[in-house]
Amino acid sequence: MSLLLPGHRLELGPDAPLRLDCGVELAPLTIAYQTYGQLNADKSNAILICHALTGDQYVAETHPVTGKPGWWEALVGPGRILDTERYFLICANVLGGCMGTTGPASTNEATGQPWCQSFPVITIGDMVRAQLRLIDHLGIDQLFCVIGGSMGGMQVLEWAARHPQRVFAAIPIATAARHSAQNIAFAEVGRQAIMADPDWCGGDYPLHGRKPQGGLAVARMAAHITYLSEAALHRKFGRNLQGPELSWGFNADFQVESYLRHQGSTFVERFDANSYLYITRAMDYFDLAADHGGVLANAFRGTKVRFCVISFTSDWLFPTAESRAIVHALNSVAANVSFVEVESDKGHDAFLLDEPEFHATLSGFLDGAAEHRGLPRGAPR
Amino acid sequence: MSLLLPGHRLELGPDAPLRLDCGVELAPLTIAYQTYGQLNADKSNAILICHALTGDQYVAETHPVTGKPGWWEALVGPGRILDTERYFLICANVLGGCMGTTGPASTNEATGQPWCQSFPVITIGDMVRAQLRLIDHLGIDQLFCVIGGSMGGMQVLEWAARHPQRVFAAIPIATAARHSAQNIAFAEVGRQAIMADPDWCGGDYPLHGRKPQGGLAVARMAAHITYLSEAALHRKFGRNLQGPELSWGFNADFQVESYLRHQGSTFVERFDANSYLYITRAMDYFDLAADHGGVLANAFRGTKVRFCVISFTSDWLFPTAESRAIVHALNSVAANVSFVEVESDKGHDAFLLDEPEFHATLSGFLDGAAEHRGLPRGAPR
Repeated sequence: MSLLLPGHRLELGPDAPLRLDCGVELAPLTIAYQTYGQLNADKSNAILICHALTGDQYVAETHPVTGKPGWWEALVGPGRILDTERYFLICANVLGGCMGTTGPASTNEATGQPWCQSFPVITIGDMVRAQLRLIDHLGIDQLFCVIGGSMGGMQVLEWAARHPQRVFAAIPIATAARHSAQNIAFAEVGRQAIMADPDWCGGDYPLHGRKPQGGLAVARMAAHITYLSEAALHRKFGRNLQGPELSWGFNADFQVESYLRHQGSTFVERFDANSYLYITRAMDYFDLAADHGGVLANAFRGTKVRFCVISFTSDWLFPTAESRAIVHALNSVAANVSFVEVESDKGHDAFLLDEPEFHATLSGFLDGAAEHRGLPRGAPR
Repeated sequence: MSLLLPGHRLELGPDAPLRLDCGVELAPLTIAYQTYGQLNADKSNAILICHALTGDQYVAETHPVTGKPGWWEALVGPGRILDTERYFLICANVLGGCMGTTGPASTNEATGQPWCQSFPVITIGDMVRAQLRLIDHLGIDQLFCVIGGSMGGMQVLEWAARHPQRVFAAIPIATAARHSAQNIAFAEVGRQAIMADPDWCGGDYPLHGRKPQGGLAVARMAAHITYLSEAALHRKFGRNLQGPELSWGFNADFQVESYLRHQGSTFVERFDANSYLYITRAMDYFDLAADHGGVLANAFRGTKVRFCVISFTSDWLFPTAESRAIVHALNSVAANVSFVEVESDKGHDAFLLDEPEFHATLSGFLDGAAEHRGLPRGAPR
């Protein structure tokens, strides 16, 4: 599939392996990415956008598989919040993904076969390591900003913690410095749904021409509920029926059932089941405090990065308390941090939706940071 | 399996069919039930206990399949809140269940085969209709109390709304007058997990000697998360590892994963997958307001039943707002109602756990109601 996907590729050869947290040296490696806008002369206007679990690099264009608009298309463009006349935007498919960057569905050059379950378990840190290679390749010393929601926000935090000199400003949105027990639990349900599907074949489904679509669809359905809020589900669907009356059976009687089934069945067309396993695992393993002696503040000691931490009131997957823990850690090391809890009933998915207070927050913070960084409005010079 | 299960059976013959909400007349029919304590001379001391989705009639004794204590064993016994020296307790396995009462795993006498998916879709109202037959059989004109949590609470509400003259007091706990969009969504994920399992065989697995255990386990795991709270999961498990270190794989690295897998694998030993489908569907279909012209208060107009409505602060499956809606409806028809929101971080499952404020509430309400009903302490006379 990856050969047909549009966009840029960075190929890292066998001589430049990526040393992963698990100890494996991964090479060769492909990083698939998109860019928008132009890099300025001193390469100071680059914004790295980090995508979420099931997102990808097609931020602001028609998706090559689904034909739908890019997931942050509303934010990206001339004069928009992520202003393509001012900034150079980069988004790479994460390591372990299935949209062109090397992942479990990619071919292991050593065997000529897809990696499948022999692909090494990766971490958020490994994803960021791969992105760092890309940033190096593009000749960018310091990113003006790293921004992302959900798992994208974890990458933002990892960038700021591990590579603070490479980041001027960081915007972690609807995220956490670690995956909570409840989040691990939901991730595990999704993985069990996939692994219980006989078509998963112990992970070797590509070798048998099969796909664990039933299991992957169930995983997506369960996860999708966690992306919304009870209020949003009530507002969108309530107990509305799909047809004129109850079917007295197990069809999708209720609109919410039909919606969920649709979410499941369309997801399997664009996502690889093993990628789902690896990427959720990377989220589970993420624990920034544990990586820094058990104290989250240690991750940011001495940082000069400017932070804007954003959460949403109705997000119960990454609730405000998680953002507040990040802010407390940043405050305790006297970091430069803004924190906004946006009032919204849209749940976790609010970061992908039209939420005026959220957009105003982004806009205000970016404008201020850009001024400090000396980035003029208008076309890059 | 049902022949080996201990306890009482009420057999309703072909001459006494149960007219179901879907229009089907179901007969013959078995109702499996347990009792504790003694019915007094004027049959005024009976408490009907209604069990939840995956509960059963073994309220206060070693479970015949799992060997575990009864699910409300802490509440039942001489001198306890459900005092077996004062009250006569009854609990019947619900219609559609799999612990002796007729359900999809039972034999359809007309064909000699298990009902499977030809079993009619049932409702909470149908469950209560079956219970009413049992109460009639026992010669009880009026139950002193109907009590239950979660789906058991739905049955309590149905009893009070449809058969108010048969109920003196009602205690709906951690429940709602309708299944919300989010609850339907979670139920649908469970059903899809079961139906996606090839061993489900379109529901005919008993005819093929198979069981959709993988799908049923996933359904249970997803549901189980909703029974707890984030705080409870954090307190119990946090990010604690199962072994000394990360496995860098997809084993149960975290204790919460191991716990969930255990919940899934033990559940499939005691529960029938088709029963799970039918009973969750009955919950989805429950909407007491819709059954009464769209106005919940209509369900209780003129009621003389004394209500004690109980919710738990950290229950996000049946949040306090749902209980409050019931209380508002009862208040608007000047019903006799107490309402207690119990402070607890244990989530929905709090009604099954040792929660002192909850137990004190039950005890206080029952004592007051028993006094009004003229039920002396001590052995029934």
